[in-house]
Amino acid sequence: MLRTHTCGELRMSEVNQSATLCGWVQKIRDKGGMIWIDLRDRYGITQLIFEEGKTDAAVIAKARSLGREFVISATGKVQERLAKNDKIPTGDIEISVDDIQILNPAKLPPFLIEDDTDGGDELRMKFRYLDLRRNTVRQNLALRHKVAQQTRIYMDANDFIEVETPVLIKSTPEGARDFVVPSRMNPGEFYALPQSPQTFKQLLMVSGFDRYYQIVKCFRDEDLRADRQPEFTQIDCEMSFVEQEDVLNMFEGLIRHLFKTVKGIDLPEVPRMTYADAMRLYGSDKPDTRFGMQFVELNDLVQGKGFQVFDDAELVVGIKADGCAEYTRKQIDELTDWVKRPQIGAKGLVYIRVNTDGSIKSSVDKFYTPEDLQAIAARFEAKPGDLILILSGTKDKARKQLNELRLEMGSRLGLRNPEEYKVLWVLDFPLLEYGEEEQRWFAMHHPFTAPKPEDLALLDKDLGQVRANAYDLVINGTEVGGGSVRIFQKELQGKMFEILGFTPEEAKKQFGFLMEAFEYGAPPHAGLAFGFDRLCAIFGGADSIRDFIAFPKNNSGRDVMIDSPSTLHEDQLKELNIQVR
Amino acid sequence: MLRTHTCGELRMSEVNQSATLCGWVQKIRDKGGMIWIDLRDRYGITQLIFEEGKTDAAVIAKARSLGREFVISATGKVQERLAKNDKIPTGDIEISVDDIQILNPAKLPPFLIEDDTDGGDELRMKFRYLDLRRNTVRQNLALRHKVAQQTRIYMDANDFIEVETPVLIKSTPEGARDFVVPSRMNPGEFYALPQSPQTFKQLLMVSGFDRYYQIVKCFRDEDLRADRQPEFTQIDCEMSFVEQEDVLNMFEGLIRHLFKTVKGIDLPEVPRMTYADAMRLYGSDKPDTRFGMQFVELNDLVQGKGFQVFDDAELVVGIKADGCAEYTRKQIDELTDWVKRPQIGAKGLVYIRVNTDGSIKSSVDKFYTPEDLQAIAARFEAKPGDLILILSGTKDKARKQLNELRLEMGSRLGLRNPEEYKVLWVLDFPLLEYGEEEQRWFAMHHPFTAPKPEDLALLDKDLGQVRANAYDLVINGTEVGGGSVRIFQKELQGKMFEILGFTPEEAKKQFGFLMEAFEYGAPPHAGLAFGFDRLCAIFGGADSIRDFIAFPKNNSGRDVMIDSPSTLHEDQLKELNIQVR
Repeated sequence: MLRTHTCGELRMSEVNQSATLCGWVQKIRDKGGMIWIDLRDRYGITQLIFEEGKTDAAVIAKARSLGREFVISATGKVQERLAKNDKIPTGDIEISVDDIQILNPAKLPPFLIEDDTDGGDELRMKFRYLDLRRNTVRQNLALRHKVAQQTRIYMDANDFIEVETPVLIKSTPEGARDFVVPSRMNPGEFYALPQSPQTFKQLLMVSGFDRYYQIVKCFRDEDLRADRQPEFTQIDCEMSFVEQEDVLNMFEGLIRHLFKTVKGIDLPEVPRMTYADAMRLYGSDKPDTRFGMQFVELNDLVQGKGFQVFDDAELVVGIKADGCAEYTRKQIDELTDWVKRPQIGAKGLVYIRVNTDGSIKSSVDKFYTPEDLQAIAARFEAKPGDLILILSGTKDKARKQLNELRLEMGSRLGLRNPEEYKVLWVLDFPLLEYGEEEQRWFAMHHPFTAPKPEDLALLDKDLGQVRANAYDLVINGTEVGGGSVRIFQKELQGKMFEILGFTPEEAKKQFGFLMEAFEYGAPPHAGLAFGFDRLCAIFGGADSIRDFIAFPKNNSGRDVMIDSPSTLHEDQLKELNIQVR
Repeated sequence: MLRTHTCGELRMSEVNQSATLCGWVQKIRDKGGMIWIDLRDRYGITQLIFEEGKTDAAVIAKARSLGREFVISATGKVQERLAKNDKIPTGDIEISVDDIQILNPAKLPPFLIEDDTDGGDELRMKFRYLDLRRNTVRQNLALRHKVAQQTRIYMDANDFIEVETPVLIKSTPEGARDFVVPSRMNPGEFYALPQSPQTFKQLLMVSGFDRYYQIVKCFRDEDLRADRQPEFTQIDCEMSFVEQEDVLNMFEGLIRHLFKTVKGIDLPEVPRMTYADAMRLYGSDKPDTRFGMQFVELNDLVQGKGFQVFDDAELVVGIKADGCAEYTRKQIDELTDWVKRPQIGAKGLVYIRVNTDGSIKSSVDKFYTPEDLQAIAARFEAKPGDLILILSGTKDKARKQLNELRLEMGSRLGLRNPEEYKVLWVLDFPLLEYGEEEQRWFAMHHPFTAPKPEDLALLDKDLGQVRANAYDLVINGTEVGGGSVRIFQKELQGKMFEILGFTPEEAKKQFGFLMEAFEYGAPPHAGLAFGFDRLCAIFGGADSIRDFIAFPKNNSGRDVMIDSPSTLHEDQLKELNIQVR
């Protein structure tokens, strides 16, 4: 090794020992004949000291030739520091340097390598290898490593076997767009990259693997909204001979294990909520339950009193913001503008203010008597000082809009602390949802999800009412995992494909191997997958997954560091039997 | 859970308890009013028993309706078996069944689910999900899981951090062909799938990650010889501030850890051999050292005696096969034909037989005196009963051919036991090799490998003589890993690209980001990668990697189970801005 110790290792116990360290020059101070250098590596920072008159003059000259981020090795004696630094573990000691060696010089980096950098996003991504030198980013990746380690420890202890499934698979029309790979050896044919190992893990259940998992890269060629990546990582799991309850318990166990080992948090039992309740109380299938502010429906109280907007609405629904009666007219106007923005799309916002003296003031005073308003306030259990905010419209839209408003109010009121964790199971999702545009039914999770046995008969009557044995795990309003009990009978799977608009030929072409596998003894099975990048970001208390991925792509799917994607040589295209249009 | 126990779990201690098992019907015997069923799951086999008169008649009827590979659940009482089976851990007990439930019927599988199957290769691959039910294949994948687990335990304990590098990267002209992925969002541009994470792991060293590893999928679009796969898995590693010796020690440690924990073998210290010695003594850079039979060079002894073939040869070289003097003329003719096959390409084979009486008989008696032949035999330290086999020609060809013959003789003499392990480091590879066809130099490992410091001056004089700080790990004649000390200075990397025929523009376009990274403080670093599939196959005592991959592709790169690759819809191609030629 070029070093005897790392930069995070030396303590008082090593004083008077000789040591050689290697690392990057973090900081140089040169004052009054003394030079101090902070030398940094992955493990920490150690101070080097050079003294005119004591240190060899040539070594001092070399030290003065150094710049930030130079890579050096330094040899000297460990000594006690005069001015100790109790902020770093090596702060009691320093190295009195006898010799240094410049292993590689460095140009001045385009931004400072500090915890908070002044490099803009584009610059940081172009020089990602420098960005990764920052403590914060490196700690994110260390956290990611730990989450993966602890996941494997839990899964291995529970008899799951990690099996690698293929990356070069077959394109399927259902779901998001596939990335495809032309096959040179099979001209005109293409592989696809997996959106998930779904069918392979189901085949492993047919094979009798019983308990499978994999921490695995998946790929979706979607238009990238903020914080989506074309390649992402899943913790992918599947179990045989189980029911929904077994899966929930097993993976609640995993989440509790991760919270305990990664965050030191004893997570209480994870509450459960049906999809129907989540939509009714939060207007979302992934409610942020760090705060209350549940929806209150008002149709029976407010309709038929002459206020046309409410009378015409399918749903009138509101939330109560505690202590917000003090909001000024201006603040409420601003909130009204906020919900009317195109992204939210509300027509207007009705407020009812319960003043601290108990009197009530609202934006609909001319339609409702004080008694009407008192009755509404009572349904919200509003106290003096509270503010009630009400939206109306179709059920879907009003809920969606109020969900946005609720989250916004939660943020404004400081109720969404990223270091506080509320975990929730959402259950009983609808099996299917209707695509108005495409005029056909789509699988809400995917085509392999089993209907609830008690809803099977509805498959021939009312597709919109069929519930699935499907479940999502939600942390702080973010879906971090989801799964389902799977269909394992050929007939039911065939029927499902039919409902989704596949012709029998299409179904056979795309999923013939799965349907055939179901004929050779498929066990009942169920599973789920966690979004690993997202889970790491949540454990890191961050909103964005980008800083938990070593080399992420930007919103155009580009890696600006390596400048990819890029054009190919004509020869290469020819060999692959394709051409650019 | 649909079961109370697995099929591998019950023992005498559970006798008289009630149990419910789930699994596949492995075997049914129906004789004299008794029915026995072997029920199988991942964990083992348990015998179910049904008795006319005792078991409910409807249950008996149901048992008689079962076929092989039906998925059932069976409930009953654990009882001691009359005829115990000491070959399986559950062999002392059986379940006296009260009730069974058919969870899924099964068609008769196209081949038997037994350790040795009669399914041909194509059939096994088409029904891979059934093939994976076989114990042998499942055990291979369990072994693979264990090798991965133990690799991570060792790497984690040595402060390596697992970092996921991207799968959608940039095509590079050097090395094997890339698989490419058209980018929909960047029309006319393509990603490439990584042949290895080489540049990313080097960038992680520039970032100061210090010790990196990853068990990672890699991709090469090569014509598939037997036992190559277009997607394969590597254990990929890199370290900073180290020299070659540190890397050898670290990863010798990993290999010893794996042998100990996976195979229970205490591996002795791994011997080292230079590339030059390996070529001289074995004609191969991956010698199988389970047996000796080292090459002996004979030019000085055999040339100038009038035998034109030897006189014209650049190299005359032979091996000694102990105890093979008894080979008949016919056997030696057959060996001669074997080395003359086009795959080997030798012109002929000279033999010298040291008879048990000490006399010598050879195929070149008319050119050499008995004393000449005795001198040759003496150089081989041949004993009575030994057979000497000699090839000649250019140095490269003679060595290559004799390597094949040596391996063949080793196999014929039973010297290559797959359960015996000989591990070897091969060091000091040439940095470059000349491609006669392309008339240019190629990197023997890859363009990032550092020349030996003492050979640096040769870069301007004699490229063929420059040795690299590169090393391979060889087990039983198979290269399972390789790596090198890397170039970390911009100038040297630039020179290397120049030697490999890159114009400065090409070098910048392809590797500009790496060259630039080297300007911002790159540490000295080195690393290596193991072929994970190959390593697992060797631990499994098998020749083929295919049975250690859950869903392998055939020699045309096809997955015959899912029928991939396949054609795409025209719409999909249009969206990707490409068309098939």
